[in-house]
Amino acid sequence: MTKEDDTNVSQLGEFGLIERIRQRISPAPEGEVWSGDDTAVLGRLDGRPLLTTDTVAEKIDFNLDWSSVSDAGWKSVAVNTSDIAAMGGEPRYAVVALTLPADTSVEMVDDLVDGLVSASREWDIALVGGDVTEGERISLSVAMLGVATGPVVTRTGARPGDAIGVTGELGAAAGGLLLLRSGASDTSPELVERQIRPRARVPEGKAIAGAGATAMIDISDGFLADLTHLLDVGGVGCRVEPTALPVASSLNALNDDVDVRELALTGGEDYELLFTVPPRRWEELADAVQAIGGRVTRVGEITESERTVGDRRLEEWNSPGWDHLRHR
Amino acid sequence: MTKEDDTNVSQLGEFGLIERIRQRISPAPEGEVWSGDDTAVLGRLDGRPLLTTDTVAEKIDFNLDWSSVSDAGWKSVAVNTSDIAAMGGEPRYAVVALTLPADTSVEMVDDLVDGLVSASREWDIALVGGDVTEGERISLSVAMLGVATGPVVTRTGARPGDAIGVTGELGAAAGGLLLLRSGASDTSPELVERQIRPRARVPEGKAIAGAGATAMIDISDGFLADLTHLLDVGGVGCRVEPTALPVASSLNALNDDVDVRELALTGGEDYELLFTVPPRRWEELADAVQAIGGRVTRVGEITESERTVGDRRLEEWNSPGWDHLRHR
Repeated sequence: MTKEDDTNVSQLGEFGLIERIRQRISPAPEGEVWSGDDTAVLGRLDGRPLLTTDTVAEKIDFNLDWSSVSDAGWKSVAVNTSDIAAMGGEPRYAVVALTLPADTSVEMVDDLVDGLVSASREWDIALVGGDVTEGERISLSVAMLGVATGPVVTRTGARPGDAIGVTGELGAAAGGLLLLRSGASDTSPELVERQIRPRARVPEGKAIAGAGATAMIDISDGFLADLTHLLDVGGVGCRVEPTALPVASSLNALNDDVDVRELALTGGEDYELLFTVPPRRWEELADAVQAIGGRVTRVGEITESERTVGDRRLEEWNSPGWDHLRHR
Repeated sequence: MTKEDDTNVSQLGEFGLIERIRQRISPAPEGEVWSGDDTAVLGRLDGRPLLTTDTVAEKIDFNLDWSSVSDAGWKSVAVNTSDIAAMGGEPRYAVVALTLPADTSVEMVDDLVDGLVSASREWDIALVGGDVTEGERISLSVAMLGVATGPVVTRTGARPGDAIGVTGELGAAAGGLLLLRSGASDTSPELVERQIRPRARVPEGKAIAGAGATAMIDISDGFLADLTHLLDVGGVGCRVEPTALPVASSLNALNDDVDVRELALTGGEDYELLFTVPPRRWEELADAVQAIGGRVTRVGEITESERTVGDRRLEEWNSPGWDHLRHR
């Protein structure tokens, strides 16, 4: 290790650390101000503003036993981007409130910032500011500003008769977590990647919104848990066909005793999009998503009030998804 | 205590807690979506967007031995509002990423939210979303979106010959902290209030920006520390007349052995505004601030490079302000 590697953030100080982080982040274009002032000064927004915040915390949302701080930085951007995608929007700007133990090495901060920067480049997001505070464990609270240049899709608009669809494949992130927890991550690097470096479905969300979706949510808590949120706020029911669910093919790598369909139904953190759309518009929507290289699968329909998943009632499924405060 | 008072956030769960918080916050107007969806959907912004984030953490930015969680909620909004004010902007929307120990009582969360709501009403800010995570101590990362409908004033524009001014009075927040630390808060409730419920100078910032200020920063780290930031990024020096400093009159309540001028020079968290302006525009600026009920004091001028405070060099002053990571 070089001398620099031994430095910790307490020795560097808040201002030294902020300056070091700034050097790893792109400079602002002419006419904008990013980090280094009281606030960032942004370009005018070309659509409806969307604003969200989500915290990614050590031992809750990431685990340094099996993932890096760079992965944590990536994830903190990805989960907020996914929220913007679930409205049909595009991410534009992010600020990061970072909490770090005083003995965090400067090298570790560099890795963390590399993860933030990689994810920001992936989705063309400008990191425009932040704050650093001391705390017991690493935590990143990202706030993201996006825009919707087309229709905005909320969670509330599902109507009886609407088709229920999902993007991509489900269960991979939960499968990856199983492997990481059992120390068998070599079994499927692909599953592990889906857990530690989740993807946000920005072009898919925009295509789905543009094709007349009536409601949309991203799958962070699990398919059934997030479907329940959508049904609750919409005041409707569902009929889901579990065999139609797009179970991630890479889950085949897991032992036979793992119920991969249950992982797809209840496992969280896939960050795929769950949406509803009038059935007459299904083909148009599927074509629009395919045109940008994505895929959607029809998994059921919205009902007046009854909620079934195959031959069981929705409420009978346990594992109602991730709850940060209750389930830990 | 009622039964409800005994509930902690772990028992209530993340979703129950979020729903409880939502009920204490104003509903969105027609056409906007605030909390309860993947992101908030905001109204179009009538100016240049300004974005900032700042964390207020237990034992660093507030101390529950002498202030309430309601005060912490207030402060988390006030410090971000102050950053917007320091650009000449107006705050519009905020999101709050809340970290809470699992055993935090629901009653305490209600108090915290009351503080957030009070401060938001004070400066007409819409609380549009948030996130809740478990952690060792209470921490609030607020991100705020504001707009500048007139000129934006950064930290960088100070020019030799410019007058240096400050709003309001200095040293009161540091004086309040001294009283709280020594258990003598009865000595001056006014000083204590300035420490635990800081004010942001929004109308003053707008008036100062509109009257031709060349640089501006809010005084969070202390007058000399924040002046140093402004000089460093502007590549200029200063000549400050310490006897001209508007020392808070309520500091008279302190013991004679406290150097109140030093508190005004180096004490942080006053959240007054420090700015520079060409001398020919000083009167116009002072009149503009007076017209909205504020006051400004001229305390020195910008020089080419030499930095003096009275008969001492600026660098000779110790207590270079607040540094979250180094000074604890």
